[in-house]
Formats: sequence, C-alpha cells, structure tokens
Amino acid sequence: MNLPFKTIEWIGDAKTGHLRLLDQTKLPNSLTYIDCTDVQSVWDAIKRLSVRGAPAIGVAAAYGCVIGAQSAQFEHAATHLATSRPTAVNLFWAINRLQSLKTPNPDLLLAEARAIHEEDTQMCLAIGRHALPLIKPNSNILTHCNAGALATAGIGTATAPFYLARQNDTPFRVFADETRPLLQGSRLTAWELAQAGIDVTILCDNMAAQLISQSKIDFIITGADRIAANGDAANKIGTYNLAVLAYHHNIPFYISAPSSTFDFDAQSGDDIPIEQRDSTEVSHPLGAQAAPPKVPIHNPAFDVTPHTLISALITERGIIQPVTTKAIEQTLT
Amino acid sequence: MNLPFKTIEWIGDAKTGHLRLLDQTKLPNSLTYIDCTDVQSVWDAIKRLSVRGAPAIGVAAAYGCVIGAQSAQFEHAATHLATSRPTAVNLFWAINRLQSLKTPNPDLLLAEARAIHEEDTQMCLAIGRHALPLIKPNSNILTHCNAGALATAGIGTATAPFYLARQNDTPFRVFADETRPLLQGSRLTAWELAQAGIDVTILCDNMAAQLISQSKIDFIITGADRIAANGDAANKIGTYNLAVLAYHHNIPFYISAPSSTFDFDAQSGDDIPIEQRDSTEVSHPLGAQAAPPKVPIHNPAFDVTPHTLISALITERGIIQPVTTKAIEQTLT
Repeated sequence: MNLPFKTIEWIGDAKTGHLRLLDQTKLPNSLTYIDCTDVQSVWDAIKRLSVRGAPAIGVAAAYGCVIGAQSAQFEHAATHLATSRPTAVNLFWAINRLQSLKTPNPDLLLAEARAIHEEDTQMCLAIGRHALPLIKPNSNILTHCNAGALATAGIGTATAPFYLARQNDTPFRVFADETRPLLQGSRLTAWELAQAGIDVTILCDNMAAQLISQSKIDFIITGADRIAANGDAANKIGTYNLAVLAYHHNIPFYISAPSSTFDFDAQSGDDIPIEQRDSTEVSHPLGAQAAPPKVPIHNPAFDVTPHTLISALITERGIIQPVTTKAIEQTLT
Repeated sequence: MNLPFKTIEWIGDAKTGHLRLLDQTKLPNSLTYIDCTDVQSVWDAIKRLSVRGAPAIGVAAAYGCVIGAQSAQFEHAATHLATSRPTAVNLFWAINRLQSLKTPNPDLLLAEARAIHEEDTQMCLAIGRHALPLIKPNSNILTHCNAGALATAGIGTATAPFYLARQNDTPFRVFADETRPLLQGSRLTAWELAQAGIDVTILCDNMAAQLISQSKIDFIITGADRIAANGDAANKIGTYNLAVLAYHHNIPFYISAPSSTFDFDAQSGDDIPIEQRDSTEVSHPLGAQAAPPKVPIHNPAFDVTPHTLISALITERGIIQPVTTKAIEQTLT
C-alpha cells in the first residue's frame, strides 16, 4: 500500500548512510523530515517523540545502532539507545536482535535492520488481514493515540484494518480520541487517516463515554507498547479508561500488536515500568500555558489494561481470544 | 470566607451601575475584569465563557436584566439573555425570578438580583456544610471542570467542602481533571484552589482511570448544569465517564448542585438539551493548531449521567441519597 509519506527511511549505504525520520512533533502543521547522522540525534528523536510508536521505535533504534557501527561504536550505541524510553519493549527487542549478530560490521548490521524494517511492514499487513473481518459495512470504530502508519514502518497496527477496508471500499467511520497530553490522535491519527481518504472524526478523550453510551461505537481498537505474559497490556495513558467503558457498555475492546510487543519476562502488568514524562506536556499544551505555575502535575505516559478487559489480542500470527497466558503461548511460541 | 477575587460584582446603584465579571478566559495567566454596561456585553460574556458555571450564569443574567431595565429594555434583555446558553437551567430560573416581579423598575430588579446573588453565596456554604463530613483526614478527591468559586457567587458547589475542610485544617488532596476542551480544571479549579492553599494536582482527563484503579481516589465530586426530575444530571462533558469509572471501581460519585439546578419539567436526562460548541475549541487548544484542517470534530459541551450512577446529590437543602424521583421531591419540594 502506498502512503504519501515515509515514517522511517535509511538513506544511502551501510558505511556512509543515515536515518531519515518524519518529524512527528511538527504534524499536522508541516511535513518535515529529520536526517540523523549520529547516534545522539536518533536518541533525541526517540526521546522527544519525533519518532514514536512501539514498532517504529524498534526500527529507528536498529538503524541508530548501524550509525553507531559506522564509527566503531556499535555497543555504545546499543546501550545508549536502550535508555531513550523505558516502556516500549520493541526498542530492546530490536537492539537485542542486532547485538545477537555479534558483529561490528555495518553491512551485516544494516542488513538486519532492514530485515526488521521489512518484517515490520509485513507484520502490519498480516495484522490488518486478521483484523479486517471486524470491520462490517458502516462500522463505527474508536481508536486512541496513534497506532498507525506513523507508529510503524507499515500501515500501522490498530489502523491496519482501516487501510485495508478503505482499499476494499467498505464504508466505515473512525473516531479518533485526541489523546492528551501530546495529542497524537488529533495531530497524527486524524492526519494520516484523512490523507488516505478514511472518514475520521476527532473527539476529546472525555467524550468517548457519551458516544459509546449512545450506541455510536461498535468496537474499540488500540495498539500496545508492551504486553505481559498473561495478556495485560501497557499502552498510551487513557487506554485503560476505554477498556472500562467498553466493558461497562458491552462492546468489544481489541488490542493490535506484533509479537515483538510481548514481554514474557513480565508475568503481569505489575512488572511493566511506566514512564513518567515532563509536567510541561500537561501544563503547556502545544506550548501555551494552561495551568497555574507551581501546581503539581501527574503525567504518566502509559497505563495497563488487565487482560480480563481485552476482548482479543490481534497479532501478525493470529487472533488471541480469549486472552489467557495459555492462548498467548499457543499462538506466539 | 474571603477569597482574593470576585467572580461577579455589581458596581454602583440600580439606575447607573454596571456588572463587573472576572474574565475567566484569561485565567490562569492574568486576573482581569470585564465591565459590562450593556446587555449585549453580558450576553457575550456568557456565550464566550468569560463567566461560566450554572449558578454564576444565573447571577450574571439577573444583573444583565437590570442593565436592560436601565434603558427600559427589561423584557428584551430577559428574552435575549435566555438565548446565551441552552443547558444550564439556572439561567432561565434567575431570569424568570426577575420576570415574575412584573416590574420594569431597576431598583426593584436590582434588589432581586442582589437577593439571588446573596442566596447563591449562602447556598454554597450550605452545600459545603452538608458535604464536609465526606472529607476524612487524608482523603483523595477527584473533581472535573470547575464547580468552584469561579462558577458561583460563593465558595462553589463541588469545591465548597474543600474550602471548609481547608479552614478546619483537615489534610486532604484534590485531583483536578484538566477538562478538555476548555481546560477549566487546570485553568480555573487548580488556580482557585491553589490560591486558597488547598493541595491540588492536575491530570489529563484520560489519566483518572489509572489513579482510581490504583486506589488513589476515595471519591469523585462534580457540579451539574441541569438535573432532571429523576436525578439524571447534565454536567461538563467527561462527567459521565467518571461516573462509569466510579461504578466500576466501587467508589462514590457525588454531584453537588443548588435546588435551582433541578428542572422538574425534564422527566429524565433525555429531556435535557445538550449544547454543541464550536469545533475550534477542540482543534485549536489555547489557539494552537492541533488537528488537520477539514477533519470533522465532535464537541458536545455536556453529557448526562444517569441517576443510577450517582451515589448522592448534595444540595443546599440536604443530601439526597439514594437518588430517586421520590427522594428528590421530598428534599426539594
């Protein structure tokens, strides 16, 4: 599927090439790219969310390791990039894949990074094909944050069935939570879906409950940043709220994520570290002052949805339903 | 109780005086007042939310009618001001009280407007006294939007017990939802509580679920803009979400409102009109562009919480619990 933008791209060869990232902090106002020619600029891009979304972070970090290898700093790059964000497990997974090659050779490392990139693209398509039957004609679907093409090297995870259904000319409508504090829903999801001609409406996070109670939402689908062995899923703050709303109103709540999002070392959501981010993200939306000075601010980046509230996990290897430790093991191992 | 600001004030005498309003659209950046010397400026102030909150709107509209009477335009003023906002029933209630005097005399009308103002101040105190026992030492309380001193001519409705508990030196902590789209929680509630030395922490609306699931909230309390005969309550969008969260996690959800908020012509929430507001409130938080152009936006100002999810209604005449048509009638009529 051809999208009119590239979230992540490697430019040039292994020894002298560099990483080009779509600067997502500038959307929807301008479509600009960042050229990362050193490891620190990759780390910065991940930290400040110029590139974000668990799968995309993994791909970007892999290419960042190649940049490190160009100056014989592969291990340093791998160690450093792993500190950029704590919750998305795909970051560590991608870096580990390169480390397991046990070579400092940029050509070999780039080949592996490209493989991760290509697998990510294929993974999105596979998730989309598994999830496509969920979208009936005239379905109304709610999503949160951006688990889209901008969060991956493909057509997204939660959004993958949207792109395929659009290709099939199935009529449906997406409601995108704006997703405070960083507004990835309005800035990114609405932008990328509108680019593809998908019918998308933006709402504030606190408006979803009313829509659901009015039977205007058929199901909810989001991505995930890390999923524990028992199916508990960490995702953008506000996801757990939606899962409670879905349960209360008896509509399905789905999570789409690649197998690389699963962390079998985490027995449950209690074992997943939750990143706390800077208070200015809340106090100064898009830079303008919304809060009085000195008032404390609570700003966790993620929450954990217990597996009992997840109707199904949709992976590239199939749909896991009901969500149990055993069903996850059977599908993924 | 002395607060360091006045939400609403009549300046001067009946025949030549005017209405002074704290311009809440400028908070928390600057404390500025608007002097309204004609009816249209009062209408504008209500419409653009320079003055907001159901009780405060009623008081402001009453004074606006006096301004109309100064130029022998009382009935025109009453009719016009009633069109400023559709959901808050206190607006119509206050205007009707002045109309029921059947006089165009500014002196008599000002006396009635002042009576409404003073009753509002006393109402807040009475609500605060009824609700105060809910606040135990070290209670953690969540509120939404601003049902505070800025929404009334006194110490607020939902916030009234906070001010009294502070006066008693009871330790407690308030969590204020920022309340998108207009951020009344971070801009107004956090501001006014911090001014009074109350421990307040701001969070995004979508973060409340996580806090509640972690047992960090003991109860939720909000105001209301209109309450139907059966106890269904319209309040700021996002309130219904909190009521579902409280129910799911088995913590109390309270609504504080004066008897003037009850609309006995509305049998249930289905009879309450819900104001739809301009899409730019969502697409341009504090003026900065967050959404791509042309993408549809959903922006209802209020939602309705069914009485079955409300643990108690706290009025100046007492606590209504459980919330039933009969209990409401017994307390209020």
